[in-house]
Amino acid sequence: MSQGETAQSELDAIVEAVLESYRSDERGQFVNRKFLPSRDEIIAILGLFLQLFYPGYFGRQDLTDESLPYHVGGLVSTLRDRLARQIELCLCHAAECGEIVVSCADEAKRLANRVLAKVPELRRVLITDVQAAMDGDPAASGLHEIILAYPGLLAITVYRIAHELQVMGVPLLPRIMTEWAHAQTGADIHPGATVGPSFFIDHATGVVVGETSHIGASVKLYQGVTLGALSHPKDEHGRVIRATKRHPTVDDNVTIYANATVLGGTTTLGAGSVVGGSVFLTKTIPPGSRVAMKPPELNLKTSAPPPDAPAPADDI
Amino acid sequence: MSQGETAQSELDAIVEAVLESYRSDERGQFVNRKFLPSRDEIIAILGLFLQLFYPGYFGRQDLTDESLPYHVGGLVSTLRDRLARQIELCLCHAAECGEIVVSCADEAKRLANRVLAKVPELRRVLITDVQAAMDGDPAASGLHEIILAYPGLLAITVYRIAHELQVMGVPLLPRIMTEWAHAQTGADIHPGATVGPSFFIDHATGVVVGETSHIGASVKLYQGVTLGALSHPKDEHGRVIRATKRHPTVDDNVTIYANATVLGGTTTLGAGSVVGGSVFLTKTIPPGSRVAMKPPELNLKTSAPPPDAPAPADDI
Amino acid sequence: MSQGETAQSELDAIVEAVLESYRSDERGQFVNRKFLPSRDEIIAILGLFLQLFYPGYFGRQDLTDESLPYHVGGLVSTLRDRLARQIELCLCHAAECGEIVVSCADEAKRLANRVLAKVPELRRVLITDVQAAMDGDPAASGLHEIILAYPGLLAITVYRIAHELQVMGVPLLPRIMTEWAHAQTGADIHPGATVGPSFFIDHATGVVVGETSHIGASVKLYQGVTLGALSHPKDEHGRVIRATKRHPTVDDNVTIYANATVLGGTTTLGAGSVVGGSVFLTKTIPPGSRVAMKPPELNLKTSAPPPDAPAPADDI
Repeated sequence: MSQGETAQSELDAIVEAVLESYRSDERGQFVNRKFLPSRDEIIAILGLFLQLFYPGYFGRQDLTDESLPYHVGGLVSTLRDRLARQIELCLCHAAECGEIVVSCADEAKRLANRVLAKVPELRRVLITDVQAAMDGDPAASGLHEIILAYPGLLAITVYRIAHELQVMGVPLLPRIMTEWAHAQTGADIHPGATVGPSFFIDHATGVVVGETSHIGASVKLYQGVTLGALSHPKDEHGRVIRATKRHPTVDDNVTIYANATVLGGTTTLGAGSVVGGSVFLTKTIPPGSRVAMKPPELNLKTSAPPPDAPAPADDI
Repeated sequence: MSQGETAQSELDAIVEAVLESYRSDERGQFVNRKFLPSRDEIIAILGLFLQLFYPGYFGRQDLTDESLPYHVGGLVSTLRDRLARQIELCLCHAAECGEIVVSCADEAKRLANRVLAKVPELRRVLITDVQAAMDGDPAASGLHEIILAYPGLLAITVYRIAHELQVMGVPLLPRIMTEWAHAQTGADIHPGATVGPSFFIDHATGVVVGETSHIGASVKLYQGVTLGALSHPKDEHGRVIRATKRHPTVDDNVTIYANATVLGGTTTLGAGSVVGGSVFLTKTIPPGSRVAMKPPELNLKTSAPPPDAPAPADDI
Repeated sequence: MSQGETAQSELDAIVEAVLESYRSDERGQFVNRKFLPSRDEIIAILGLFLQLFYPGYFGRQDLTDESLPYHVGGLVSTLRDRLARQIELCLCHAAECGEIVVSCADEAKRLANRVLAKVPELRRVLITDVQAAMDGDPAASGLHEIILAYPGLLAITVYRIAHELQVMGVPLLPRIMTEWAHAQTGADIHPGATVGPSFFIDHATGVVVGETSHIGASVKLYQGVTLGALSHPKDEHGRVIRATKRHPTVDDNVTIYANATVLGGTTTLGAGSVVGGSVFLTKTIPPGSRVAMKPPELNLKTSAPPPDAPAPADDI
């Protein structure tokens, strides 16, 4: 065989092996099926929501009272059509996968309208979130900076849209939205969680808010805070049980400092409590509690080891 | 009404409700105002800085001694104009928002020139940062890999530019820069912090360096390290007090391992100290200290529970 | 001088100073050299791998049994050429930098073929990873959601490709791949680590898996878990020693909960062990161990301080 022929046959063998891999296990592929939402389009839709929530900060910058109605008219109309199309794909996807849904297209339009009708209410809540960042962070120079640059606000904004879609029962779409925000901000807020107004997440990286968390009003979280589950109970077949309350309840005016971990579906942090940095908590605390790590007994050696001593293997 | 008319009136109602939401609260919108920097343009400017700091690694790849002067000439000239424009928008923004600024355009050009005149000095420092990564990380295969792939270096590079702009008093721009780096790398270094040469951040995710932190030379941080504030003091009106030293001082040659948290504006880590992983520290430690977690008394059960025993609810 | 002349001479001075900075230290620049991989192209290649691993979920969405062979044929052929080109640049880069490599182009083609021949095997393993997410996360609604949205799966997928390239000795490329995934997902898995099938990383942010970690089958990690090194030993010249086993071994069926830190090259977590959240571990534990933090003695104050009392400075 010539070199070219050898290369071709190598290629053929690879292609055939890959095709065989598709035939041997139907998982991991989406073939002979029609309906799947588009991640890129969903991200674009989030961009349109940002323009609608915070006009002038995102998208067109030269808005005036005069141009605003035309701008918003065009925006809402585009957003409705594109959102309805993605909702439709998600509903049809679920139907195709065996779940029962009424006519996808009509239901999708109805749901898209419902989400858009919620925009004024969502904006009212989001503005309390912006203000909470301003009131809670001494490093904030103003509302502009928060809206343009704070990752916590971006994560919360996306979560609030996704949560509406989740409550309406739209599959796939909500989680694709929050995972995009997670990638941008480091904060992973499950769309199933419920969160009251004036929510502030500072620094955002590593925050995880589990699916069944309930968060009250005026709650403040710092980076690395987990509201998570204890070990997942399993049914008699050894399968994890879904749809139970697995994550904590955080009442109004609670602050949780950096890298604290709060676990368990029956764990409640009473109103006004403060949970200190790095605290690990699996029990309910009453309202007004202040919970802090006892200062660890540090293994403090102030005499530096001589430079040529071997590095201690276990003290770091 | 026809179906089309119903859809139209639904749309009209949504648009009107959104416009009413803008009228009812002026926060969260930027309307009837002119000056706001462009986040996309600022990100593009950071890309040009990367080309200037690390020529050949970013942007054009076929550079030679011969082509370099032309390349750099074009780059500096473009960068100056585009940076000046964004600085101008930021200064005018502050002026429009009621803060007093002298002629925005002239001042912006002056400041852009000043930043660019600092590039050689910034490069000198950045090369110490690259070298510190090489010297500090056994997994590093060479300087190339560090410049092309290490998120810590990207975060530090963007911070160093942003810090110059912060020191010059440019509003908004520095934080938009560092938050972009934060999104890319997981490391949130406030542009107000001061950081000495040979700074190394390994793995980067979750690192937070607060606004008033002082970091000396040859400091090494690992993932998840927080240099943060204790609870924010408030003034007599209950507003958080800004512009105080709220974050730690880290002296030369200090190493802080993964997920350690150091808090407080009067907390100083003395030169040459080593802070172990997961340590939570709110007090000053003297030079040469080695601080480690006492090995926790682990609740160690080596006999696995029988497979059908209920999962313990509170031991994880 | 006119204003224009002043501006020009300022520009000239900046350009000259930058050029002088390049001349004074050859680090931090890639000039008069030819071979460097393209980060953008490597990211595009990862996109093609995602299309090949999970057809229909990424890339073309209307695939059928009929169109699949043509689609895969085109994909494999493109991927092979583009991957070979980047491998070639990496091999030539190493050669140019003084390392000895046989003919870059032929070797690169051979290696690209070898990687592609591994795709079926990699897919088999990746499907176990997808299934492990489904089986391990009560919040997962189905395989579709996991493939489309879970950051942990993205990080693992990219790691598995990068690891093959690492094992074949390709420089630069593997780490550029995993650092892209790190930026997208917050999980930093070094391409040198070895990882068994059915690997699940939940939430992903802040996970660090060091270069010499060994991870068995059916291991589950949560956000913020570090498999790291103890302090790096240095040789007689004070240089860190590379290429030793510095990171832990995690045996089959181990679960490590959020923000736990496990350090050291001789530390082994025995099969079936469970490491609780926030545990800090530098010692081997036997198979079947359950290691948890002792509930910290919390400094719990349930009587809230009167509103005008000074904020306590050191209890958080």
